[in-house]
Amino acid sequence: MTEENTEIKYTVHFVPDDVDIFVNPGDNLMEAAVAAGVHINASCGGAGVCGTCNVIIKRGQVESIRTDKISERDYKKGFRQACKSKVMSDLIVEIPATSKLEKAVLSREELLSSCTLASGWKFDPPVKKVYLKLTPPGMEDNTGDLSRLMKGLKQLSGFDKVSVDGDILYGLADILRKDDWNVTVTLLEDSDNSFKLINIEPGDTRAGNYALAFDIGTTAVRGQLLDLNRGRILAQGIDYNRQISYGEDVISRIAWAQKQDGTEKLQKAVVATINDMIKGLVKKANINISDITHFVFAANTVITHLLLGLNPKYLRLSPYVPTANYLPFIKAHRIGIELSDYVYLYSLPSVASYVGGDIVSGILGTGTYQKDKLTLYIDIGTNGEIVLGNKDWMVTAACSAGPTFEGGGIKHGMIATSGAIEGFDVDARTYEPLITTIDDAKPKGICGSGLINIAAKLFEKGVIDQNGKFNKGLLNRRIRESDNGFEYVLAYGTETQTYKDIVLTETDIANMIRSKAAMYAGYRTLLQSVDKKFINLEQVIIAGTFGNHINIENAITIGLLPDIPKNRFLFVGNGSLLGARLSAFSQDLLNDGRKIASMMTNLELSENSLFMDNYVAALFLPHTNGGEFPSVTAGGK
Amino acid sequence: MTEENTEIKYTVHFVPDDVDIFVNPGDNLMEAAVAAGVHINASCGGAGVCGTCNVIIKRGQVESIRTDKISERDYKKGFRQACKSKVMSDLIVEIPATSKLEKAVLSREELLSSCTLASGWKFDPPVKKVYLKLTPPGMEDNTGDLSRLMKGLKQLSGFDKVSVDGDILYGLADILRKDDWNVTVTLLEDSDNSFKLINIEPGDTRAGNYALAFDIGTTAVRGQLLDLNRGRILAQGIDYNRQISYGEDVISRIAWAQKQDGTEKLQKAVVATINDMIKGLVKKANINISDITHFVFAANTVITHLLLGLNPKYLRLSPYVPTANYLPFIKAHRIGIELSDYVYLYSLPSVASYVGGDIVSGILGTGTYQKDKLTLYIDIGTNGEIVLGNKDWMVTAACSAGPTFEGGGIKHGMIATSGAIEGFDVDARTYEPLITTIDDAKPKGICGSGLINIAAKLFEKGVIDQNGKFNKGLLNRRIRESDNGFEYVLAYGTETQTYKDIVLTETDIANMIRSKAAMYAGYRTLLQSVDKKFINLEQVIIAGTFGNHINIENAITIGLLPDIPKNRFLFVGNGSLLGARLSAFSQDLLNDGRKIASMMTNLELSENSLFMDNYVAALFLPHTNGGEFPSVTAGGK
Repeated sequence: MTEENTEIKYTVHFVPDDVDIFVNPGDNLMEAAVAAGVHINASCGGAGVCGTCNVIIKRGQVESIRTDKISERDYKKGFRQACKSKVMSDLIVEIPATSKLEKAVLSREELLSSCTLASGWKFDPPVKKVYLKLTPPGMEDNTGDLSRLMKGLKQLSGFDKVSVDGDILYGLADILRKDDWNVTVTLLEDSDNSFKLINIEPGDTRAGNYALAFDIGTTAVRGQLLDLNRGRILAQGIDYNRQISYGEDVISRIAWAQKQDGTEKLQKAVVATINDMIKGLVKKANINISDITHFVFAANTVITHLLLGLNPKYLRLSPYVPTANYLPFIKAHRIGIELSDYVYLYSLPSVASYVGGDIVSGILGTGTYQKDKLTLYIDIGTNGEIVLGNKDWMVTAACSAGPTFEGGGIKHGMIATSGAIEGFDVDARTYEPLITTIDDAKPKGICGSGLINIAAKLFEKGVIDQNGKFNKGLLNRRIRESDNGFEYVLAYGTETQTYKDIVLTETDIANMIRSKAAMYAGYRTLLQSVDKKFINLEQVIIAGTFGNHINIENAITIGLLPDIPKNRFLFVGNGSLLGARLSAFSQDLLNDGRKIASMMTNLELSENSLFMDNYVAALFLPHTNGGEFPSVTAGGK
Repeated sequence: MTEENTEIKYTVHFVPDDVDIFVNPGDNLMEAAVAAGVHINASCGGAGVCGTCNVIIKRGQVESIRTDKISERDYKKGFRQACKSKVMSDLIVEIPATSKLEKAVLSREELLSSCTLASGWKFDPPVKKVYLKLTPPGMEDNTGDLSRLMKGLKQLSGFDKVSVDGDILYGLADILRKDDWNVTVTLLEDSDNSFKLINIEPGDTRAGNYALAFDIGTTAVRGQLLDLNRGRILAQGIDYNRQISYGEDVISRIAWAQKQDGTEKLQKAVVATINDMIKGLVKKANINISDITHFVFAANTVITHLLLGLNPKYLRLSPYVPTANYLPFIKAHRIGIELSDYVYLYSLPSVASYVGGDIVSGILGTGTYQKDKLTLYIDIGTNGEIVLGNKDWMVTAACSAGPTFEGGGIKHGMIATSGAIEGFDVDARTYEPLITTIDDAKPKGICGSGLINIAAKLFEKGVIDQNGKFNKGLLNRRIRESDNGFEYVLAYGTETQTYKDIVLTETDIANMIRSKAAMYAGYRTLLQSVDKKFINLEQVIIAGTFGNHINIENAITIGLLPDIPKNRFLFVGNGSLLGARLSAFSQDLLNDGRKIASMMTNLELSENSLFMDNYVAALFLPHTNGGEFPSVTAGGK
């Protein structure tokens, strides 16, 4: 966006951030802010429904669609929704404090993903609170409490088919009478437009209606607390999945689950992770946990089984059959999640044993299923999952990449939180590093995106060779030999949070190479299965919990991403969490999730010999076949 | 049936019972057997579906509808279904042993009720077992287990709308594989023709599909174990409702429920009663308790609340509102009933606080709602409930009669089980009694029907007067004065099971008079509310758990039943249990139960001054107004 080679460019100046960016006429103002690194809240992701991305146009012209999120008065003052505005001249744009409030809780994924979403949906959460002022009973009309309630509900439009959760009966009589027959009911929508009445409270409690959206990864769990009235993210958190103690990848977890009480222990571990995170989210947002009415999650198929307490053994036995791709209604407390008894789980549906709800969620969240473009969707994670297709067809596969890009199997690896080394370069003469960390905190470890950047630069500068081995001729204080082989010192103990040196070892690099080779072999095999080549790809969407400041060139340099034009790549951060959140915001999108799962064709790579060949060929930097990576091997960077 | 004053009568001789009966041409053979006191199994109640009432026509002609319950070969041998046969000549009919087998477990109600049923329904239990031979998965078809199961089910007709109980997931994978993808699923039908998949078992388990039908009374609980494959009763039992310790009538139970943990204690008491009865039924029938797939019950509204653990307090506060007349799906184990976790409860719907599912059940079972005749349906019990109407309209009321007709509030009262004194007469000169007992066992106490017979005869013979007081001039060894007033000795301790004298006291008679007055005032007020008189009644159906050898004349003598022609009375025994059983046998009838509840108009007697006047006027034997009981006061008996 900063090139100067097109005819007309407008300058957008953001205050109080004091940042300039050049944009094309008609560019979306929200996208301009994102590109400029200026944070504007946009918890609905640009759908225009949350009204949190309000900005003030101090000078210049925008072309803006006005919604009811801005009052007449504010509109006259220059308030506009950034996501609904096009830049039509040079601008000075003020970001009001209210549009910045949530910065602390919004991850960088939000910034990136807000422009790359599923479109055409309406804000209509599957869990609704409805306030009813019932007619009190009298001697002439003393029908039962439940019938009176249902009659009151059915007088509203849209609630023709409502079933009742039996637990509703308990306390019903007192609740109805507590605030003189004024009550709020909570309704859970099903895929056939019917509803289930799941809770009743005295008085008007509509103001408190929150949902949780979770991406439950093999390594990391991310959760968001959502306000279902305003379509906003109130808080979010990340933590390690405590199942890690029972194995780093899904295969080892399946094996562990076969031990005595193994499935139960694995279930308890991930549920404990989730429960602690919920407590944290509730505390951050300062809400009542009893106002959480829904729990949506996306996870790979193995993790989904383990979370539910289902033995995943048949997932790894041919023909690799899950117990259920589409989950029936199950209550959260049934599996130990500490929410109100009435709260149900919704799981993004999975496709196959190794293509889970997380990938369906990503395809949903990014709107890949709505577009004509031939798209490759990549979820870089422990259970690397890929999808190829467009709105008409999709093929999918999973290539077990291992946990390296989430910090696992790396000596000083960590998930992408504060203190993770992410940005990296190395001085070509002194081999001294230049590092940047998340939150500019003291270094603590290396996250997935950092690993890519470090490996690429070390390879570029000749510190490591095509095999990922250190150049032994370069030994200096940074490149040294330890008891366990060669390593590169990224930071000395005096500079780190851990007071210990942070290093990258040759073993780390070898693990990373296996991971990237598995991913690359996965894309290649999937393309070959439908007679396509990398160059046919119109878009490559990269998702994952590995960190977001991934540098495309670096990822190509190490052979993780294919060597195609850079402008075809798009980062969406945690696509899985995005889809989970949208499924909590929109019944339409939730239903789309089911359609996506049913339209995907799964390719089993574990029994595919072509995949094995592709994998072996990719065990070099960038690849055994230099022709696959012309921009790298030509040194033309 | 034994009068000789019509033109043609046929004689039906039953063997091996060696009993004759005269019937009209075209009379139903089953009804003839019932009238003759000959037992033939008819667990479906004459619907022709159970095939248990087979008899052999040894001589003579019947006009018979042949069903698939009789083979070609047996038909030629003279086998016919008694319930489907009309008497067309003098007959000799043999009851084969197979049609007698269940005698031990069939109560006398069954005999009586089998000819007085709802008609036009098909045998189609709401809980079905369906056997599926699924296609095993392969690499080309490795969809999830649950999807495979649902696909297999939907290939059968009639299962388009099936929802899945989330608990199904647990164990699903192993169950499917245990017998090579051959499984039996259990489906629970809902009122809208949709189904809920509630259980899955490996292999073909269709042979074991049993239901429980319970009538849960204030005083007595009756239960039947039903075979859902053959429409048969396998076992039945009766016991006291253990809630009796917390009060004899529903009003005192409601009061008790307001104490600390009161509702919970009352719930536990009745659930314990039910659990013990279930154990007994299962043992008697020698089946696996895990093959019980359904639990249907009928109870009055207060007992229904207490069984579910719902505080009944609003039932006795104006405007007398139940928590729910129509229950949503609730699992049996949710309330402590010890059946498989997947078993759901079905409750016959109630109408109002004091007009419960038991009365709806009786109207259902007797087909009163299908007929043109103006019918008075009376359930003589602790919570005396009455219905007046026909297929077009129904009004209903409850008149708290107290427990006397179920043996409560009577010094030596008991429920109608073995040893209860039921038949009674008294020698006009010596005042010595003539008693008969249930099962001809040694006397143990007095059941409700016995109480009526005893009081009527004592009144007729002048032992007690219009006020129910003993004639003090008659003192002899049978009529004596005790510490608590006068009493009549029915049996001396030397003759009884209890080794104590069994007596009827003046207090007993006073309680009985209050009970019968409440019932009578109830009918009268209900008739007055729709401008009808007793003489307009075309049929009076009498139900209740008070015993069945009730003598109509005796009941009229004491003023319990109105003084109208005897042939308009019909006894159906436990109508509530009958309706519960039929609701387990037929989804159509189950749905009819909901219609019945919705068409009933409830008249609250507790705030009705006319009822009070009628009650006070009825506190005599038979009534203060002799004109109400011409056949009694004329002494014309």
